[in-house]
Amino acid sequence: MKYVILVSHGLFAQGVHSVLKMVNGNTNDVLSIGLEDGMSAEKFAEKFKKLVSSISKSDSIILLGDLDGGSPLTTAINCLSELNLLENSLIFGGMNVGMAITACNLKDSITDSNEFVKTLLEESKDAITNIILNFNVTDDEI
Amino acid sequence: MKYVILVSHGLFAQGVHSVLKMVNGNTNDVLSIGLEDGMSAEKFAEKFKKLVSSISKSDSIILLGDLDGGSPLTTAINCLSELNLLENSLIFGGMNVGMAITACNLKDSITDSNEFVKTLLEESKDAITNIILNFNVTDDEI
Repeated sequence: MKYVILVSHGLFAQGVHSVLKMVNGNTNDVLSIGLEDGMSAEKFAEKFKKLVSSISKSDSIILLGDLDGGSPLTTAINCLSELNLLENSLIFGGMNVGMAITACNLKDSITDSNEFVKTLLEESKDAITNIILNFNVTDDEI
Repeated sequence: MKYVILVSHGLFAQGVHSVLKMVNGNTNDVLSIGLEDGMSAEKFAEKFKKLVSSISKSDSIILLGDLDGGSPLTTAINCLSELNLLENSLIFGGMNVGMAITACNLKDSITDSNEFVKTLLEESKDAITNIILNFNVTDDEI
């Protein structure tokens, strides 16, 4: 099975998970966990290992984190390494909703890792937009 | 005052807000609201207008949404238009934590709108990464 695991500071990962539930319905293959304010990295590691306890070496993982270099993502990577689950994992930072939706929608259809990485980075970055509204439309233009 | 307003489906906006509280501490100038599962756009609009009721035309707004074209962001834009608050607003879709942190940190230091938009888009997209780990490091290389 191919899992999407969301990790973050605070409640961000669970927030992304809530959107996936609204958009995709079934999210049995999605797991999420946040490093709560005041929680130690050790406690987060303990909770993360519990979260992924049913994942085996025959599964694969797409790990999405809020911040590349941040404590939650770094700790999650270290845990996956300890559990020998890192070789079947693809890891991304800077998660947005576009990234999470794309990861869920394409993980089982794009099996080539390089193509998956390329597509996920493109879709996530393309989702970032500045919305420009026209305040100067005249009646003629409408 | 310059406000950062976070809007999304589900609990994503509040999740981003929780990270800002952990990273920046004081978030008096940040407001967040989510379109909960089953909530109508009308109800969301009502709640959004209540959220921004203390904002006046002398203030300015940076509005960050989860999905460009999604109901929460579109409804928020329509509300700001009704309240005549749109001309002092900059609007972005595809929010991630990098975007929210950068918006909060730079909103009062970069006063030129074009420069702010350019910087925010760059920082948000740069935050999106594929983390590649080296599984084949030999003892010699360490």
